[in-house]
Amino acid sequence: MQLIYLPQSLDARSSYGVRAFRSHFARPVVFVPRRPRLPLLSVKAAKDPSGPKVAIAGISGAVGQEFIRVLTERNFPYSEIKMLASSRSAGKEVEFDGETYVIEELTEDSFDGVDISLFSAGGSISKKFAPIAAAKGCFVVDNSSAFRMADGVPLVIPEVNPEAMADYKLGKKKGGIIANPNCSTIIALMAVTPIHRAVGVKRMIASTYQAASGAGALAMAELEQQTRDVLNNDPVTMNIFSWQYAFNLFSHNSPMTENGYNEEEMKMVKETAKIWGTDAVSIAATCIRVPVMRAHAESINLTLCSELDEQDAKAILSKAPGISIIDDRANNRFPTPLDASNKDDVFVGRIRQDISQPGKSGLEIFVCGDQIKKGAALNAVQIAELIL
Amino acid sequence: MQLIYLPQSLDARSSYGVRAFRSHFARPVVFVPRRPRLPLLSVKAAKDPSGPKVAIAGISGAVGQEFIRVLTERNFPYSEIKMLASSRSAGKEVEFDGETYVIEELTEDSFDGVDISLFSAGGSISKKFAPIAAAKGCFVVDNSSAFRMADGVPLVIPEVNPEAMADYKLGKKKGGIIANPNCSTIIALMAVTPIHRAVGVKRMIASTYQAASGAGALAMAELEQQTRDVLNNDPVTMNIFSWQYAFNLFSHNSPMTENGYNEEEMKMVKETAKIWGTDAVSIAATCIRVPVMRAHAESINLTLCSELDEQDAKAILSKAPGISIIDDRANNRFPTPLDASNKDDVFVGRIRQDISQPGKSGLEIFVCGDQIKKGAALNAVQIAELIL
Ligand SMILES: NC(=O)c1ccc[n+]([C@@H]2O[C@H](COP(=O)([O-])OP(=O)(O)OC[C@H]3O[C@@H](n4cnc5c(N)ncnc54)[C@H](OP(=O)(O)O)[C@@H]3O)[C@@H](O)[C@H]2O)c1
Ligand SMILES: NC(=O)c1ccc[n+]([C@@H]2O[C@H](COP(=O)([O-])OP(=O)(O)OC[C@H]3O[C@@H](n4cnc5c(N)ncnc54)[C@H](OP(=O)(O)O)[C@@H]3O)[C@@H](O)[C@H]2O)c1
Repeated sequence: MQLIYLPQSLDARSSYGVRAFRSHFARPVVFVPRRPRLPLLSVKAAKDPSGPKVAIAGISGAVGQEFIRVLTERNFPYSEIKMLASSRSAGKEVEFDGETYVIEELTEDSFDGVDISLFSAGGSISKKFAPIAAAKGCFVVDNSSAFRMADGVPLVIPEVNPEAMADYKLGKKKGGIIANPNCSTIIALMAVTPIHRAVGVKRMIASTYQAASGAGALAMAELEQQTRDVLNNDPVTMNIFSWQYAFNLFSHNSPMTENGYNEEEMKMVKETAKIWGTDAVSIAATCIRVPVMRAHAESINLTLCSELDEQDAKAILSKAPGISIIDDRANNRFPTPLDASNKDDVFVGRIRQDISQPGKSGLEIFVCGDQIKKGAALNAVQIAELIL
Repeated sequence: MQLIYLPQSLDARSSYGVRAFRSHFARPVVFVPRRPRLPLLSVKAAKDPSGPKVAIAGISGAVGQEFIRVLTERNFPYSEIKMLASSRSAGKEVEFDGETYVIEELTEDSFDGVDISLFSAGGSISKKFAPIAAAKGCFVVDNSSAFRMADGVPLVIPEVNPEAMADYKLGKKKGGIIANPNCSTIIALMAVTPIHRAVGVKRMIASTYQAASGAGALAMAELEQQTRDVLNNDPVTMNIFSWQYAFNLFSHNSPMTENGYNEEEMKMVKETAKIWGTDAVSIAATCIRVPVMRAHAESINLTLCSELDEQDAKAILSKAPGISIIDDRANNRFPTPLDASNKDDVFVGRIRQDISQPGKSGLEIFVCGDQIKKGAALNAVQIAELIL
């Protein structure tokens, strides 16, 4: 696979909203995280001898790079931190919280004495190493899908079901695995759970508009490269996807399951049931990848158990944690992926009574959330905070 | 508004699928239509002294340029043809069927002696001039929304409801207006009508992924320019839209209506009722513009009046006129906008039983159709063929 060079001038202010991505490619693993909208001096992760020992598995990836930024932004306490990736990255340097770290190859020994590790190195790495780490007394927050549906593994969105991991506390339990839900599930449930709590959701139909970031840093680079190719009338580079992504869109590239829904879609169905603790909600999804870099969007149609006025829905959402509303009908301003890029919150708009359902029994909303942030790194770090 | 120059090397083979668009900007109104996949000599529109006198209003636009191509491809018979646009384009030349035509300014006199005119010069031009032309005995096929919902004006998709214009025949009636439906409506109903005929559709929920072409040639140019801007890290050019379109998506830019649905969405609702001749189907839509050039996609969820197996749905669709199926689950190959670009057919895939509805009472499909072709020019020329 070909790494493309991105000029450093394409920095955090880029209208892609892909700070980590661009930095990743410009300076592959040397990344100086700075909270973009605050004075630099206020930005420090909280290094403290009493803090936990932390490891990041998959530090050189799109999510791994975002872990660095999120830990810094949230002043996550730590006494020591280990940066882990494959042998390809071992030996390279990463900057974090004013110090330079050398990336180590992830091995069975990596987790000796580690209290909390954040995994984003792919499903097979999680499958192999997360149980090893947990057995050594480490709390693993796993971003892969390997353990999400496993019995006894909490699947947690901190704003939604923190109670599912009530026992997972440093000092209280000797290690364990907690799974981070799929990005599309997190982004949908951040907005839909407050409605579900208020009146009950009977049925949910989602159509997604998913960003390249969900397929990793190389997919983002491929979308950029392909776009340049098309604009230059060159043959389109295809390393990650076997079709054109630039100026195009396609059904999500996850494997198809027996019922004609792909795995991404079935994750939304099954993970929602696990997170909400009920099989009683009927769910269907159509997951589509669109040529956007970083944030996902979803068009969501809800059938409610009892009537809810759209104004009340808006009021409920405006009080929900981690939700921002952009719903300005007069000016046609609603959430876009760029609004959500590099933001913690999930943005909700187009909040309206569904005219295809009787009375006030249906609701439609449109949501956007940063796939790398709330869809991955931020949610995982929030889970880690619950462990402290 | 700024016209950008596109190098001629960016031609019909472009991976945008925007032949008309590119030609439009490279050589603003001098466009030599050639059927791309057939030997050149077989390509002639049928000039014949016994054919109707034809006028194209809006010849210099995205749809107008496509009219030239579609008339040629379909050997549309004509004895004379007039090329009309605003005073901005008057005097420029257009090539059609081997002859060079000088664009005339559209005025009240333009339609004297004209039998059939194809209008795509915007709603206000249609409102003013379509009745004038019709009063002079001309059959107007109108691409704007001006007359779609007007009583007595047929709203026609030839594969769906040709009977609505049974009286509109040269020699049988002395002129009149026939409306071309909205592009999203046409593309949805091409696929959904055969299902509706077979088992009845009770409810339809659509989420669209709409191309730039729906907003005209300048919007397509703006998407390209913005994409270059972003890749070059330049400020993003915004003339048509007041937000970033490149690597982003947004709620459709049509005006919002009272119920929180925008006009594009309400067109799908109201036009479907008129075309199907029933108010009994419940419809809701979420219309989103995505950074794709030419073809629209739609994720459609159906509640059926009686059960239909997904295999039977596929069989019905595979026999439906104007439909191509791409539904290869094993290889994850489903319709994309690029598959549909420059094609006559609407492409359908992801045909599956909706798992959120009981038994076989629900169906989900994903459709792609060329917005300029079947969504506009082709459908209008097919209507004109019914007039002959
Ligand atoms: N909501 C979510 O939970 C969510 C969202 C997005 C992604 N994810 C998951 O997070 C994971 C990474 O995603 P990403 O987007 O960051 O992918 P990415 O950009 O492709 O990064 C992959 C990372 O995994 C590392 N890695 C690969 N093979 C390894 C090995 N054998 N040993 C150790 N490290 C290895 C890579 O290190 P090298 O650079 O050394 O190869 C790199 O750091 C995936 O499992 C993905 O499914 C989850
Ligand atoms: N499904 C559908 O039915 C469908 C689909 C797409 C579009 N449309 C409709 O088709 C129309 C054109 O769309 P488009 O995408 O082709 O737009 P476009 O690319 O912007 O082209 C507009 C055309 O209208 C002409 N025009 C503008 N003002 C005029 C005037 N005062 N007198 C005469 N001609 C004038 C322009 O001529 P100059 O170059 O001289 O300005 C140009 O030829 C719109 O009404 C749109 O809503 C319908």
